[in-house]
Amino acid sequence: SQNIGIISRAFRHQFIIPEFQSFSKEIEEIYWKCKDNTDGKVASYIPQLARMSPNYWGVSICTIDGQKFSIGDVNVPFTLQSCSKPLTYAIALDQLGADAVHAYVGQEPSGRNFNELILDHNKKPHNPMINAGAILVCALLKTLVKPEMTLAEKFDFTMKNFERLAGGEDFGFNNAVFLSEREAADRNYALGFYMREHKCFPLKTSFRECMDFYFQCCSMEANCDTVAVMAATLANAGICPLTEEKVLGPESVRDVLSLMHSCGMYDYSGQFAFKVGLPAKSGVCGGMLVVIPNVMGICTWSPGLDNLGNSCRGVQFCEELVKKFNFHRYDNLTHASNKTDP
Amino acid sequence: SQNIGIISRAFRHQFIIPEFQSFSKEIEEIYWKCKDNTDGKVASYIPQLARMSPNYWGVSICTIDGQKFSIGDVNVPFTLQSCSKPLTYAIALDQLGADAVHAYVGQEPSGRNFNELILDHNKKPHNPMINAGAILVCALLKTLVKPEMTLAEKFDFTMKNFERLAGGEDFGFNNAVFLSEREAADRNYALGFYMREHKCFPLKTSFRECMDFYFQCCSMEANCDTVAVMAATLANAGICPLTEEKVLGPESVRDVLSLMHSCGMYDYSGQFAFKVGLPAKSGVCGGMLVVIPNVMGICTWSPGLDNLGNSCRGVQFCEELVKKFNFHRYDNLTHASNKTDP
Amino acid sequence: SQNIGIISRAFRHQFIIPEFQSFSKEIEEIYWKCKDNTDGKVASYIPQLARMSPNYWGVSICTIDGQKFSIGDVNVPFTLQSCSKPLTYAIALDQLGADAVHAYVGQEPSGRNFNELILDHNKKPHNPMINAGAILVCALLKTLVKPEMTLAEKFDFTMKNFERLAGGEDFGFNNAVFLSEREAADRNYALGFYMREHKCFPLKTSFRECMDFYFQCCSMEANCDTVAVMAATLANAGICPLTEEKVLGPESVRDVLSLMHSCGMYDYSGQFAFKVGLPAKSGVCGGMLVVIPNVMGICTWSPGLDNLGNSCRGVQFCEELVKKFNFHRYDNLTHASNKTDP
Amino acid sequence: SQNIGIISRAFRHQFIIPEFQSFSKEIEEIYWKCKDNTDGKVASYIPQLARMSPNYWGVSICTIDGQKFSIGDVNVPFTLQSCSKPLTYAIALDQLGADAVHAYVGQEPSGRNFNELILDHNKKPHNPMINAGAILVCALLKTLVKPEMTLAEKFDFTMKNFERLAGGEDFGFNNAVFLSEREAADRNYALGFYMREHKCFPLKTSFRECMDFYFQCCSMEANCDTVAVMAATLANAGICPLTEEKVLGPESVRDVLSLMHSCGMYDYSGQFAFKVGLPAKSGVCGGMLVVIPNVMGICTWSPGLDNLGNSCRGVQFCEELVKKFNFHRYDNLTHASNKTDP
Repeated sequence: SQNIGIISRAFRHQFIIPEFQSFSKEIEEIYWKCKDNTDGKVASYIPQLARMSPNYWGVSICTIDGQKFSIGDVNVPFTLQSCSKPLTYAIALDQLGADAVHAYVGQEPSGRNFNELILDHNKKPHNPMINAGAILVCALLKTLVKPEMTLAEKFDFTMKNFERLAGGEDFGFNNAVFLSEREAADRNYALGFYMREHKCFPLKTSFRECMDFYFQCCSMEANCDTVAVMAATLANAGICPLTEEKVLGPESVRDVLSLMHSCGMYDYSGQFAFKVGLPAKSGVCGGMLVVIPNVMGICTWSPGLDNLGNSCRGVQFCEELVKKFNFHRYDNLTHASNKTDP
Repeated sequence: SQNIGIISRAFRHQFIIPEFQSFSKEIEEIYWKCKDNTDGKVASYIPQLARMSPNYWGVSICTIDGQKFSIGDVNVPFTLQSCSKPLTYAIALDQLGADAVHAYVGQEPSGRNFNELILDHNKKPHNPMINAGAILVCALLKTLVKPEMTLAEKFDFTMKNFERLAGGEDFGFNNAVFLSEREAADRNYALGFYMREHKCFPLKTSFRECMDFYFQCCSMEANCDTVAVMAATLANAGICPLTEEKVLGPESVRDVLSLMHSCGMYDYSGQFAFKVGLPAKSGVCGGMLVVIPNVMGICTWSPGLDNLGNSCRGVQFCEELVKKFNFHRYDNLTHASNKTDP
Repeated sequence: SQNIGIISRAFRHQFIIPEFQSFSKEIEEIYWKCKDNTDGKVASYIPQLARMSPNYWGVSICTIDGQKFSIGDVNVPFTLQSCSKPLTYAIALDQLGADAVHAYVGQEPSGRNFNELILDHNKKPHNPMINAGAILVCALLKTLVKPEMTLAEKFDFTMKNFERLAGGEDFGFNNAVFLSEREAADRNYALGFYMREHKCFPLKTSFRECMDFYFQCCSMEANCDTVAVMAATLANAGICPLTEEKVLGPESVRDVLSLMHSCGMYDYSGQFAFKVGLPAKSGVCGGMLVVIPNVMGICTWSPGLDNLGNSCRGVQFCEELVKKFNFHRYDNLTHASNKTDP
Repeated sequence: SQNIGIISRAFRHQFIIPEFQSFSKEIEEIYWKCKDNTDGKVASYIPQLARMSPNYWGVSICTIDGQKFSIGDVNVPFTLQSCSKPLTYAIALDQLGADAVHAYVGQEPSGRNFNELILDHNKKPHNPMINAGAILVCALLKTLVKPEMTLAEKFDFTMKNFERLAGGEDFGFNNAVFLSEREAADRNYALGFYMREHKCFPLKTSFRECMDFYFQCCSMEANCDTVAVMAATLANAGICPLTEEKVLGPESVRDVLSLMHSCGMYDYSGQFAFKVGLPAKSGVCGGMLVVIPNVMGICTWSPGLDNLGNSCRGVQFCEELVKKFNFHRYDNLTHASNKTDP
């Protein structure tokens, strides 16, 4: 039943990527090209991540009309880590509105050399895509959205929303990662205490629960296929292409994409916006959630990270993709002669 | 003869804004709404700018298929000031290629609290939209593009390129502004000497000529109508909608738009990208060059500036515009229900 | 028996301040002058400090040959707070040597605008007089000095050393302050976690115990009279003027005085070094430990703090003192005509 | 006639260093020890400095009662460079008073990582020992002290004052260095323009003349012997030990020594204050002016510089000196058993 939309469109021959098979072929070529890239090192600050094989490499695609293509290790579960940041931000925006959220967290890149510990000129964390901002977004979700919920209920609520974004696909929870993250989180506790000192949190925040909730969001588990559907939901203004459920409002999605565009790739964000020009969010798990608005969502996953913390293969994949296709935000739709419009 | 394109399209009823008259009506409404905004102060560091009346207010629009609409003080000439930065950057990209240009200047926002005097982590100015970067772009144009040209010839060459971007419209040069700028330019000389100390300039740069050339570019004079055509040329991948001349390559335009998006509005750039989501460049003259890729170029002009240096009416105009129309980069084309798709 | 030294010197008429009575008279005058100063606010981040009366004002003096003078509220106990920093640093130097200590903590002022959260260019806290450095010094005392001691034993060991510095005077411990400090310590936890992230602590440090130990040192309790003797011990190269016990080596004392000189007065340190030119350490308790090397130790106490955290009356007292007497480090001993050499 | 003081004291056997011959012997030993140190590189930003032989090594001493000892290349003239900074600051203090001077320039170290280009939190240069501050001090001397003087007269006035500090010894002026400095001064012009932008200069400052005056002060020429007498005048509260002329007031000297103590050795200042504990000022010429208050002045000169810009042999000399003698500001006069009190 969830595929009614796609079938009806298939009959009408109105797909956003009309020649999906040949497009998939091109994706496959880029996939193999990137597979040769063995740069990067697996994150090692907790054993559960350190044990990941650097050989894993998967790419999943889901268009806004529900066409899908996958290749490689697309069914191996990984913890979302920072890939969860745009998702919790999206839920917070949808539940509380942009004004309420941004009373607590900024909307701007922090500047590459800026120590993340420092708040912005308004004494707020710079944006929801960096740790400080994401911790604060978790505090908002925990404290301001349905405050009567226990931590367990709020965890459940959030996971359910993640699953709705993914078209109903089940999410896992990696408790070993959660416990390890919580143990190894010197920087995050430093950020948390620093923000508490500066009264960044909403009143009545339980600091301990909020930190735990943040680590729990990072420890949710999914695979490439599932995350690509979430990306497609963002590409489709918040309506899941598989279920046609409106999970998020278009304004929330617009704000999420804006900040993924400018702040989603750690200290490579500025370069990525310039070269690739697509909203994306990476995580130390090696995953990347990439959105081509009005067209498709992509998830790439490979645990080898460059020294800025982004997946080496994932970044290369995106760069090859925009070399081939007119997906850069500022590619011209009609005049960029040497690129393909799929 | 330069209007062949528009006439032929008119016959074919294929305009990008099919209902241009009703669209113009909406623009006019926003125009009057913003006219009530008397916030801001006229730039006062040189007398020529200080004498400008804060009442001036003009808006010009030019679509990528050459439809035009203007209202207000659209024929009063003003000096381009920082509105020239994306233009000299575009010419440098087109003449030298992105790699050569970006060997000297970065591609990232500097971060709001970052003192502009400081170079980025590669010892380059952060981007071509801030003074340090624009001075360096002028040095590239002067030293690496046709180095045999005298300063007078290079000035001429640049003005000719500006005119081609504007569909052949004549540009003026305000010598009084040039002389005043050069006199009042403590900060720019500080930046220049600081960069020279750090060997940021290409070999054989004549420092004095390069500074003069920079002040000359800032002192070129045009009006709203003319600048809107330049913006439209950028919206149209470098092909002037009036003359159909290919003035810039699409790759150059993509890079210009990327950096206008992230760095074009001084310290408001992050907020502007978030709220408005359009590539724009403002100047202390009160002008704003705004690009809606694949749709139209806009120029607004009103000398009253907010405390970050952007035109108060210009910023308000853009915010009203994206409230009404689905022009934000991350507005969804089909699902943003309460916005109009013109 | 502990006064043998002073008595024998009294017989020999060889005191460092020969006319001690008339000197005391001058001190009393300055005391009353400063009493009129009702500027400043009592520290309020924990209730135990907030309840302190701003009227308290005491000054105690102890020369290196054991002459003493006290006036005002010199017997009211207060918690040492940051006045403990030079003392724990001194003990660490004496136990471990300067090289071992400064392998973990720097020796330089941090610069006034520098956020204390940031480590210096060697990834060490800037110096032992600021919170980050003092936390690390506590970690060294706890982890490297007699590591077999329990926390209780180490507390006892430290208090005993404080008492030896004070000529055998008993110290108290304010447990309510300790518990409140620990509760209110967002910034200190942020600093601690940040340093743990950057591996600043010695191996085997128990983070929790080290933080507790730091708060305990801040919560030790003494009065003006007692602290003045500690200052005199520092003025006397580590030999207590009352007991003639060598508590610290002269090299340790030299290093402590050097850093009190440059870093002891929070963000006023530079100004204080310039204007007063004496090693001093202030605390939010309102106490100030001031050393006139080779002459005397002074303790002033008044809870009203200026906006940099120093006691208003204490700072004024020092400034009046060096106006009157040639105590500034760079006062000339023979040619500064309008100052008194007591 | 200028030696009346020393002769009369000689008859009275009251020298500050009673055993001057054996003391000189020890200095000679340290001299030869440091001669082996061939670390460091000669400054190379202008040819006149680059041509200096790294082998030059001279040490001159002058006590406050006029006893002198010299060894090595003590008669070779070198340009003062930054060694002139405490001297111009001293003259400005004496002519204008500390309040007037410090209305324009701060009194605190800038913090090691702080970019010198940035002004302090009061929008003043941090202190008179760094370039920005010294440029401003020159502007004060030029603009506020006898403003009717031409630049030539002011140069003469300053040189005369330098000569009085040096007991009447003639100073040279190296015009080739002056011209080269002015040519190579990107950083200093950047600093100057930056300060002019921020209105740091006194009203009516002629920017160009003030910069020239600064370069002229740096280009005055003397030798080790002469500079040691200047240092001795500072050690003696402003009274030249050779002529017994009161050249500076004791308050001015106190302020100069305070800032030499905290800021005189570039980014090594904090370390130097901690380890050596003596007021000193180094310059890229390889000279160091060192003051032991109430005892003697020292000048060392060797062109090989470490990577912070201080003379390698000069720094080593000072460190050896305080290892041997109780000259560290916080050495105890009576209890530091393993050091000699000459």
